[in-house]
Amino acid sequence: MKQFTSVKDVENVTELVKEARALKNNPYADKTLGENKTLGVIFLNPSLRTRLSTQKAAMNLGMNVMVMNIDKEGWALETRDGVVMNGTTVEHIREAARVFGQYCDILAIRSFPGLKNREEDYNEEIFNKFIQFSGVPVVSLESATLHPLQSFADLITIEEHKKVQKPRVVLTWAPHVKPLPQSVPNAFAEWMCQAQKEGLIEFIITHPEGYELAEQFTEGATIIHNQDEALKGADFIYPKSWSSYHDYGKILHNGKGWMLNLERLKITNQAKVLHCLPVRRDLELGSDILDSTESLVVEEAGNRVWAAQTVLKRILENI
Amino acid sequence: MKQFTSVKDVENVTELVKEARALKNNPYADKTLGENKTLGVIFLNPSLRTRLSTQKAAMNLGMNVMVMNIDKEGWALETRDGVVMNGTTVEHIREAARVFGQYCDILAIRSFPGLKNREEDYNEEIFNKFIQFSGVPVVSLESATLHPLQSFADLITIEEHKKVQKPRVVLTWAPHVKPLPQSVPNAFAEWMCQAQKEGLIEFIITHPEGYELAEQFTEGATIIHNQDEALKGADFIYPKSWSSYHDYGKILHNGKGWMLNLERLKITNQAKVLHCLPVRRDLELGSDILDSTESLVVEEAGNRVWAAQTVLKRILENI
Amino acid sequence: MKQFTSVKDVENVTELVKEARALKNNPYADKTLGENKTLGVIFLNPSLRTRLSTQKAAMNLGMNVMVMNIDKEGWALETRDGVVMNGTTVEHIREAARVFGQYCDILAIRSFPGLKNREEDYNEEIFNKFIQFSGVPVVSLESATLHPLQSFADLITIEEHKKVQKPRVVLTWAPHVKPLPQSVPNAFAEWMCQAQKEGLIEFIITHPEGYELAEQFTEGATIIHNQDEALKGADFIYPKSWSSYHDYGKILHNGKGWMLNLERLKITNQAKVLHCLPVRRDLELGSDILDSTESLVVEEAGNRVWAAQTVLKRILENI
Repeated sequence: MKQFTSVKDVENVTELVKEARALKNNPYADKTLGENKTLGVIFLNPSLRTRLSTQKAAMNLGMNVMVMNIDKEGWALETRDGVVMNGTTVEHIREAARVFGQYCDILAIRSFPGLKNREEDYNEEIFNKFIQFSGVPVVSLESATLHPLQSFADLITIEEHKKVQKPRVVLTWAPHVKPLPQSVPNAFAEWMCQAQKEGLIEFIITHPEGYELAEQFTEGATIIHNQDEALKGADFIYPKSWSSYHDYGKILHNGKGWMLNLERLKITNQAKVLHCLPVRRDLELGSDILDSTESLVVEEAGNRVWAAQTVLKRILENI
Repeated sequence: MKQFTSVKDVENVTELVKEARALKNNPYADKTLGENKTLGVIFLNPSLRTRLSTQKAAMNLGMNVMVMNIDKEGWALETRDGVVMNGTTVEHIREAARVFGQYCDILAIRSFPGLKNREEDYNEEIFNKFIQFSGVPVVSLESATLHPLQSFADLITIEEHKKVQKPRVVLTWAPHVKPLPQSVPNAFAEWMCQAQKEGLIEFIITHPEGYELAEQFTEGATIIHNQDEALKGADFIYPKSWSSYHDYGKILHNGKGWMLNLERLKITNQAKVLHCLPVRRDLELGSDILDSTESLVVEEAGNRVWAAQTVLKRILENI
Repeated sequence: MKQFTSVKDVENVTELVKEARALKNNPYADKTLGENKTLGVIFLNPSLRTRLSTQKAAMNLGMNVMVMNIDKEGWALETRDGVVMNGTTVEHIREAARVFGQYCDILAIRSFPGLKNREEDYNEEIFNKFIQFSGVPVVSLESATLHPLQSFADLITIEEHKKVQKPRVVLTWAPHVKPLPQSVPNAFAEWMCQAQKEGLIEFIITHPEGYELAEQFTEGATIIHNQDEALKGADFIYPKSWSSYHDYGKILHNGKGWMLNLERLKITNQAKVLHCLPVRRDLELGSDILDSTESLVVEEAGNRVWAAQTVLKRILENI
């Protein structure tokens, strides 16, 4: 593996999940692989699970880790070319990325979308510039449009907890007070479509009209606008809020009726519930679910370690 | 040891101090004990000594350390149950604590009191929720009401520097411009009462009327309101400011006459002076004392490492 | 080596550069030297290259590293003596420095000048107090007046890339929108004057009138106010903005005509261009240079690791 920014960087997700589950059973088997190798973990936006799970994964592999919260510890980066830098930005991403590449063998980067300009966000400018200029393998810790380590951990969790050979997995839109990025649902859709192609699951998406995700990520998914219908017979449910892709960055629906609770789960096949966290209780998802054995959100967060460790291991083997 | 939040988690402080002093003489003897174990150090409030000494203690034991300044790097945690999270809090402590427990073998946490609502602070809600939900051993790096690692380091320092078998130790209130928590004096009182019970010291508290600490922490202490009388014959003095417990969180006294300097020490038995730091010079404590050999504050800060290392070692032996 | 705050702490820069280049070829040769030794890295101002390169250097030597961003994670330090601390400062540098010395075997510190009071800045009060009170070796990560690790990395880069035995090195003032410290040009001048004395280079400084650096750092340098004349035949150029030393902290010149681009380089001897970074593109330095093979700024940033590692190694050998 040479970089990890999307499911497209993976040949076969079935094999990848198998490797992750093997690592989970034997976390320190590759502790010499990362010796004298440095992972740079760069946050342009805040993080909790992602930072800790990535740091732990790297330490399990014997790597050194350097964390840099650029938004707080560093300074404003200029990302546009051809501007005279006489304003508030202090350093250009061209220099910053190249310099990170001098100190680190692998870079892991988080950079959220602005949600103002769809083209800019979906071009993944900042991310692609880090890839272009740093000269070292780059791992996405959530970009403007995708959060692949999360989706990988989601798939590990589904594989661990499935009771039928080909479970029905439902991604459902959920309410929120803020317009959120599409990165988590985009990546989840992309990974589940691939998992469906490999015969691991059956994949359904449900959301109010107007919340259609970009088609490049949902090819092969069944899209149903009636949530009840979509939930029928579900084995796993992934509730997640996102803002509109088509009316970019907007909230189009007041959310009424779309939040799940234990009562609403009765229609499913004793479905287990996933969420990437953080989750706003009783707004995005019923607290009765989160406090029940139906919820897998904590195990799922735990699996972020094995997702990150598998990716770092594959990249280290290629350096 | 299964957790460390109070002197009550310790069977015998005499033995604990002996173990700490042995570790101080041989810091790296247990370097394999913490191998592949991760300490999560979580700050909801700022720290200097506590962060560095805890981090160093963990590294001496061979542990991995992940530090998270939630107040700055993370986001606002919701601690109340039963609220619809449609405001400014982004994640509930139930999820956050459980997730930390996924990544860490031991959690060390700092969480200050609000000083508005005594019942809330003295219930140690935030702390107890971390213990309840994380599922791993929790070490207090100062809670709303106690700072036990500080008191443990204080007792190590007293044992190292005592010239008589059973020294007289005096906790004295000191002036300050801000209302401060009772956590340091509460914990110091609790530890010194226990040390007195084990025959290590004699313990006296002095403060202006109205500054009585909660009785649960001072049982067995002699309380004297006349500072001069209390200081007579003292071997160790611990000046510290705190706000009122009874008129909760208030400053009741302008501080006049309560700040110690070298002149005031003449009444003592050549007493050594302790302080948890940070200390405001010439407001809380005379700079002439801090710059003299009477002050043990630096050695005391150094002993924070051995206090933390002893606690982590005992917990690691129990995992 | 007992401290590293200036070229004066170095006996012979030729030997120092040789050692750094040997380390660069064999980075992990001294990995046991730093075992169980702790480097405290203290920032009173933000950092990117300096933090990462110093951390990496220490890890290459097997040291533990603890980073403290005092400006963000800690609290305001009092540096003046004899004041009653009843204002906004929470801890005195006397206590803070002594405590750092308890936890760390070496301290590396960054502390920028205020640029208001020249005497205060050039007395290096904060820095000298850390040295005086910490009781452990101190490494400068940029003080009020000098940035010696940068200059050491600059000299390594010059030695690596020189095509003639004694290249002509030109430090040239550059425009900026903000008044910047003199620390980088002061240190560069000090190191280049020493390198000239040892026969490694020929050293020229050019700047508009009024931008004369303090003479203590420029002894032996040729100072030319006409930039074109200074650039003629140059092998290495170091463009850098600084505020006036004589009219302290002021911007005296609008910068017109002083920014270098590829066109301006034609007058040189195919000069390579250095810069400490961060650099403001097309304000301080032409982006055409930064994107060309004439620029060595990325390699130079990479060499910060070997500069730091050499210094830490020499200090460790002396502890």
